[in-house]
Amino acid sequence: MKALLYTGNKTFEIQQTDQQPLQAGQVRLKVAYCGVCGTDVHIYHGNMDKRVQIPQVIGHEVSAEIAEVGPEVTDWQVGDRVAVRPLQPGAVDPSDHGCRHIGKNLKFIGIDTAGGMQQFWNVPAHTLHRLPESLSLQLGALIEPLAVACHDIRLAELLVDEYVVVIGGGPIGMLIALVARQKGAKVLLSEINTARLELATSLGLATVNPKSQDLVATVETFTNGAMADVVFEVSGVQAGVQAMTQLPRARGRIVMVAIHPEPKPVDLFRFFWRELKLIGARVYEPQDFEEAIALAASGELPLESIITEVAPLSHGQQVFEAIDNNPAGLKYLLDCSQD
Amino acid sequence: MKALLYTGNKTFEIQQTDQQPLQAGQVRLKVAYCGVCGTDVHIYHGNMDKRVQIPQVIGHEVSAEIAEVGPEVTDWQVGDRVAVRPLQPGAVDPSDHGCRHIGKNLKFIGIDTAGGMQQFWNVPAHTLHRLPESLSLQLGALIEPLAVACHDIRLAELLVDEYVVVIGGGPIGMLIALVARQKGAKVLLSEINTARLELATSLGLATVNPKSQDLVATVETFTNGAMADVVFEVSGVQAGVQAMTQLPRARGRIVMVAIHPEPKPVDLFRFFWRELKLIGARVYEPQDFEEAIALAASGELPLESIITEVAPLSHGQQVFEAIDNNPAGLKYLLDCSQD
Repeated sequence: MKALLYTGNKTFEIQQTDQQPLQAGQVRLKVAYCGVCGTDVHIYHGNMDKRVQIPQVIGHEVSAEIAEVGPEVTDWQVGDRVAVRPLQPGAVDPSDHGCRHIGKNLKFIGIDTAGGMQQFWNVPAHTLHRLPESLSLQLGALIEPLAVACHDIRLAELLVDEYVVVIGGGPIGMLIALVARQKGAKVLLSEINTARLELATSLGLATVNPKSQDLVATVETFTNGAMADVVFEVSGVQAGVQAMTQLPRARGRIVMVAIHPEPKPVDLFRFFWRELKLIGARVYEPQDFEEAIALAASGELPLESIITEVAPLSHGQQVFEAIDNNPAGLKYLLDCSQD
Repeated sequence: MKALLYTGNKTFEIQQTDQQPLQAGQVRLKVAYCGVCGTDVHIYHGNMDKRVQIPQVIGHEVSAEIAEVGPEVTDWQVGDRVAVRPLQPGAVDPSDHGCRHIGKNLKFIGIDTAGGMQQFWNVPAHTLHRLPESLSLQLGALIEPLAVACHDIRLAELLVDEYVVVIGGGPIGMLIALVARQKGAKVLLSEINTARLELATSLGLATVNPKSQDLVATVETFTNGAMADVVFEVSGVQAGVQAMTQLPRARGRIVMVAIHPEPKPVDLFRFFWRELKLIGARVYEPQDFEEAIALAASGELPLESIITEVAPLSHGQQVFEAIDNNPAGLKYLLDCSQD
């Protein structure tokens, strides 16, 4: 079978590899589509060379059909259509407090272990979620990022009619905006890329470009002075961190979705002064996957619109290069059923 | 009557002043004791000269007896013993979201308007809370800071048996530690001043000095590896901000009690990675005052121990100088019934 291997130095290579034997509790997936995550791009840039094991197959946004069921696996059959929740909980640490999805010894499948950018992929059966027949396998590859959005919104305890500002209109920011709107919130998306802004507008989202517009004044107008009930910081940049404390109402919530590798200056006075809350949110729990699948299957979200390109697995290198060259792009999928 | 006036330039002066006429809704208080708050020390240092109106009487931690009842005041009688909740809500702003205690147009009595460091003080009757006969007027002057601690703990949603780390053992940090323990939490107080550490130890609190001990390792040991359920950042310094994200368990809460006037670097990655929550907490609501009074009257808190000195009103200048010269000190009270 064919696999796309990250070999370091901004390089992916297609290689012919052997299928691995199935372990107890595993299934072999015939991968349909594997989306490219921002984390995969970080790996491509070499930022995570200490964490991945070069050469390694990466990728964790997968839709698939079950090709073979390993020993001790019940509940699953060959041909079942699935999405993968790529978390392998490790030994329980007392400080995990029951949060297995972010446990201290968690392994992230597709980063810490081999990923889905290959034709066949062995994964533990406990990672699987069933996709309904009505949901295409292309949209099935969006379940993982959609589950991130569902998790972020669940942790925000978002209510109907609340005002939401999403800072950053990449794939996750766009999905958060769409899910929040679907839940009855009034959503404003802040983004600096004009193509992304145009896409958001075409999807009926209110938008603001903080490079050319006064963000605080825009939020004031949008909310009739009430300011944001919830702000999602998805930009990962200092301007987003600076904005996030200026936009909420008294006791408003800020959800920290973005990864900020280095400490950044935060207006802690504002947290005190207006009794703001900051809520860290990472990956997902099983119920978020179930919600994402139900939402995607409902057809109520314009998910096709965020797919920028679908390319065959063998074009992996070109796809990562294209992502780097297209800041307007959103979600790129690798079709792993094609060479 | 006599009043202690802040006249700028690190100077307080005792002056003979006239009693102000009572407005509708006001009562005239015969002030018993007025505690010195950290904010009052900031004023003394000149840091708030733009906000106060020099010359001004400051002070807002007051116990008193009602000396006279103004027009339109019901429910209160001459001789009633009271504590003052020094908040004057202003016009409602839509972004206040019903949080009148931190409203955009709130005035803080004793900072934005005349305070309690005088023999007689006119305040709106809506600010009053009744003190039971069993509670001394000295301890009555501690109700305001104790209400801060009650508010912080209420917003933390602290549960029995939870592990609490308080960063900073000044008056508010010490009160938070004592109230949290009284509510059944297991409390560790982090402080660098050895006299304060000794006091905390004498009150039966577990302590750590992060200058000489490894704070993270101490919390690990104290919690048997479970780490803190709740961290209160009361230090106001960068070391506290750096520590606060290292001490909680997964989904642990950090309560931002301290005032950090300038943005400080915060480990936002840690919020994401462990799904931490930051909860801003400011002043109090009426129920916090009621809880503080009930707690103080119960006799279950060693409140006398945090009173460093009681001095006559006329010694105001010396008291502020003493505070500056004694980093081990906690709560200083001015006896306003004495010249």
